[in-house]
Order: sequence, then structure tokens, then C-alpha cells
Amino acid sequence: MKPQTCRQFTLAARPTGKVKESDLAFREVEIPEPADGEILVHNEYFSLDPSMKGHMEDRSDYRAPLQIGEVMAGRSVGTVVKSRHSEINEGDQVFGFLGWSDYTVTNGKSIPVHVYHEKVNPEAALGVMGGTGMTAFFGLTRIGEPQSGDVLVVSGAAGATGNVAGQIGRILGCHVIGIAGSDDKCRMLGDELGFHATINYKTEDVGEALDKLCPNGIDIYFDNVGGDILNECLARLALHARIVLCGGISHYNLEQKPPGPDNYFNLVFRRAKMHGFLLSDFSESFDEAREQLRSWYEQGELIQKSTVIDGFTCLPQALVKLFDGYNLGKMMVRND
Amino acid sequence: MKPQTCRQFTLAARPTGKVKESDLAFREVEIPEPADGEILVHNEYFSLDPSMKGHMEDRSDYRAPLQIGEVMAGRSVGTVVKSRHSEINEGDQVFGFLGWSDYTVTNGKSIPVHVYHEKVNPEAALGVMGGTGMTAFFGLTRIGEPQSGDVLVVSGAAGATGNVAGQIGRILGCHVIGIAGSDDKCRMLGDELGFHATINYKTEDVGEALDKLCPNGIDIYFDNVGGDILNECLARLALHARIVLCGGISHYNLEQKPPGPDNYFNLVFRRAKMHGFLLSDFSESFDEAREQLRSWYEQGELIQKSTVIDGFTCLPQALVKLFDGYNLGKMMVRND
Repeated sequence: MKPQTCRQFTLAARPTGKVKESDLAFREVEIPEPADGEILVHNEYFSLDPSMKGHMEDRSDYRAPLQIGEVMAGRSVGTVVKSRHSEINEGDQVFGFLGWSDYTVTNGKSIPVHVYHEKVNPEAALGVMGGTGMTAFFGLTRIGEPQSGDVLVVSGAAGATGNVAGQIGRILGCHVIGIAGSDDKCRMLGDELGFHATINYKTEDVGEALDKLCPNGIDIYFDNVGGDILNECLARLALHARIVLCGGISHYNLEQKPPGPDNYFNLVFRRAKMHGFLLSDFSESFDEAREQLRSWYEQGELIQKSTVIDGFTCLPQALVKLFDGYNLGKMMVRND
Repeated sequence: MKPQTCRQFTLAARPTGKVKESDLAFREVEIPEPADGEILVHNEYFSLDPSMKGHMEDRSDYRAPLQIGEVMAGRSVGTVVKSRHSEINEGDQVFGFLGWSDYTVTNGKSIPVHVYHEKVNPEAALGVMGGTGMTAFFGLTRIGEPQSGDVLVVSGAAGATGNVAGQIGRILGCHVIGIAGSDDKCRMLGDELGFHATINYKTEDVGEALDKLCPNGIDIYFDNVGGDILNECLARLALHARIVLCGGISHYNLEQKPPGPDNYFNLVFRRAKMHGFLLSDFSESFDEAREQLRSWYEQGELIQKSTVIDGFTCLPQALVKLFDGYNLGKMMVRND
């Protein structure tokens, strides 16, 4: 049932420390009308991502910050319900930074969208083929440069990006070790997603476990968390190792910067690199990546794992839960 | 005057904290005789390098450690005084890890040597064309990937590797900023070696100075020191910056690891990389590099800066002085 008004969440306050539900404000507005050349999208699934916190903060690090009172930014997938656009039709499925709103108007460029003329599974559109899936794809393939037989360690491995990075590593012939924060997550990685080994960092000594699981060192470390786990991996690099710096969820909740990794100098002894990237660096190759991911997904090699919370009004709560590590795989909210 | 005996320094104790003269022991032995296929080299100039401390320590980081009682390892340049080798002649000049000894015997492979059939300036053979010059060359060109117009910051800029890295950057069209520890060193970099700007880290606030000198950020940071200066540079990276991790002289004197660089996460926001390397990674290209460096040197584009201390018995003292930052350019001892 489509709502008669357009519900939205706007940025009410910039988060300090952990994100709180009260950092977002609910409002209802009239459903917007698309002008000539525009489409009206009904958003059906909303993506929750750690990077959202950076977007809510007043930092010029890599993206213009949201202004207080603006509609919360975020990726979603939805259906075109009205089109005055020459190439996008009613019924088409679209994906993009459409924001926390029941409906969004765009000409496809003001807010760039990817159009699926043939619908795909919306969870996969947000997950393995979405922003986090492509982040995993480019980070692993372009920065990690995996070779068959490489030992790949992924932290935040049960998260949206981590689980896909590990799965792609498995597809490409790596020996994949996932680090996650619960036995349930570790079981899911091993039993469902084909990780070769897992470490529960809350109950195991990560350094000791790595010593056992990769006695010859780590060829690729796909880092989603930073902090101590990054430092333990730095201490155990194989020659010419690559550290893919994808995120640092252990950073996002802190008001103060945590200490730097004091094992970084091992990069010299191991002739290794630590390389940061953002998905946007690879925008020219998005279509190619999505095609590859879709193909692996449709062949059943790449599994979509989601934690889906129902109801538009749950969006702020879902964001808080994301930072509490509640999700297995991609955290998303399904519109009601 | 050639000595009638062969003086040597051996490793007497593994250094803890700073290197001390007493970590080395003097002895005299008979001058060795070359066997069939071997040469006898009289060592004339000895290179002093920060990496020697790592070699003296019992660490398996990247090279087999010296054993107590063994002749101290180090690069030198000398003249072949006896040859029973088919391709190396008496009078040839050779360069290699010949050790702290008046005389060294090798077949050219047990201790690999580079042979100059036509003699070059021995200071340049150890300096701009030696291990530190080639380290600067490969670090800057292969890891730093300089483009004309890039802002290049070099720390330890008055040191043996740093001054050459900065000069090569200047030759390749970079805007070169050198960080060094005295006004004399800074003057030398600007007046003699063509650095575009300098920072005396002992009297200036490095962060503020960098803000003024490179308002658009740092494209390449050639790191010879680690520590706070690395962290200040991490905070000021341009997009797609490259950090060349060459050494960390601020590390070598410490018994405890210093804190890691807590600005490392800026590598993500700036899509930048931090890449360690060792000279030995590029051994296949040594001859090519030496040719390029020699050509720049002979054309007067690359200046050899040395601090030369006279007398074989000064070797331990010279090593201590190296870690005190006594040298401008390449630290070496001339044999008497």
C-alpha cells in the first residue's frame, strides 16, 4: 500500500560519539511531482552503511556534509511510479542515493541512479550488487590484487562489505579467513558463505588465532575495522602483502582518534602496502563491476546475506543497531 | 700507505637503545690471500647507514643478523690489489658489502660486488650511485611514482638517502620540500642541492610549516624518519598521495616501539597509499639505476654531498655520530 503522504527523516543533530535515534527527525510532506525530464521513485529498500555517520558529521573529509534539516542521505532501491524521462520508464527499478524518503524525484543525474529495466532481487541490488558489494569488489580486486592461493584475512567479515570481500576472495581462489564478533556470525561465514576459517574476536585472541591459521603470513588484509585487529594483522604480513583500508568501524563511534597502528613499520620489512580507497574512485567501472557481481550472484557463487528490518519508521533504530553490530550481512530496512 | 696487517671491527655486543662504540671490537689479523677465482680488495671508503643497527640486532626482520664476533657488515668501495678472477682485474674499483676490514676476499658472488673498470669518484660510488642513492632512486621512482608538478616532501632530507630523493624529485620536476634538523642542513639543501623549500623541525612547527608550504597537500611523502613527522604528513595528503616508507631513524634508537601514526586513516579519505620497500627488492634493476644516477651525477644535476671522517679506527665513532644526526649527506669513513 503506497502512503498518501511522503514520510521522511531529516538530520536533526550531528552525532557526537555514537549515533542516536534523536539525531534524526521524522516529518511528512506532500508527495513531490516530477517535472519534465524527471522520475518519481517509490523507495522500497533502504541501505544502512557505516559511512553514513561520516556523512552526518560536519567533516569535509570526502563528501559534502549533510546540512541540519536536510533529508538524510542514503542508498535505496525503488520503483519508478511516474516518469517524464525519455529513457526511464514507469515500473523500472532504480538504485541510488535516493535518501530517507518514501518518494524521491530526480532527473537521474541530480541524483545519479542505476536503472534495472529487468528487476533484480532488491536485497541483492542493495547488497552484493550495491554500494557495499562494489566496494568489496574494487577494494579486493583493484587494491588487494588477489592471486590464487593468497591468504586473505577479512575483518568485519559478517558485515555488508566484509562478507562480499571474503566471498569474492573465495571465488578467486584465495584462502579466506574471516574475523567477526559472534559465534553465530562465524558459523554463517563458514557454513553459508564458504569462508575457510573464522575468528571470533570477542572470545579468541586474534593474534594467536592468526598465528595458527596463517603461519606463513597474510597476503591480503581487507580491513573494515581498524584498531587492534589492523595492528595484529600488520604484525603478520607476508612479503609484498597488501592491506586494503576500506573502513574503520572501530573509529566511527569514537570522539577521539584511537592510537595509530604501532606495527606499521612492518610495512618496510615486508615490503608491503597499506592503501585506502573510496568506492567513488571507480565510478567509471561501476557497470562492469555490477555485471560481474550479478553474474556471480545468479550463478549462486555469491550469496546475498541480509538483515532486513521492516517499516520506514525503523530507519533511525536500524542505523543505531548497525553500529552495535546487530546485522549479519547487509543491514537494510524494507518500506511498509 | 697500505697496512701490513688487516685491521677489522667485529660485533662485540648487540646494541640496546643507541649504538655504542663498545658494541664493536677492534682486532688485527693477517691479510688474507685470494684463492683461485677470488680477488683481494683494499677497502678505501666505508659507508655508514642507519640500517646497520638492524643488522647488528638479533632480528630476523629482513636480513640474517650478524653473529657476535663476526666482522661488522657494511658497504665499502675499494681497489682490487690481487686478482685470481678471470673478469676482475687488479686496479679495478669494486663496491659491495665488503665489511669493516682493511682487506676483503670474495669471488664476487659470495659477497656480490659491482665492478667499475673505469674508476669513479669513490664518494659518489658510495653515495649517489651507492646503496643509499639507489634506495632513493627506487623508492621515489617505483613507489612514489612522481609526476611533474607533484609536491614532494622528504624527511631526513639532509641524510644520505633523503638528499638524493629530493634531488631526483627536483630533476623530475617535483616541487621539493625538505625537512631536516638544523639551519645549516636546511641551507645546504636550498643553496647547494636545489630544494625549493625547507623546514627545520627542531625550531619550526612542522604542521604549520607544511600548511604554509603545501596548501594543496602533499602528493609524495618520502619518509626517512617515521614518528611525529610521518603523522603530520599523513594529515596533509593530497588525493591519491603516495607515502614512500623508506626508514624510520626515529625508531632505530628506541628500545620500545613508538606509537603508531594516528592519522593513518586519512589514507582512506585521500585514497592514498603507504608503501614500504627495501632496496633488495629491485636488485634486477641495479645496473640500470646506477647508469641513470651516474649520468645525472656526471652532468652535474645530481650533487654528491658527503661527510667524510678520516681513519679506519674512527668507524665505531662515526656510526654513533650518524645516529646523532652529525652528517650532512652521506656519512663515510676514509681509510688511512
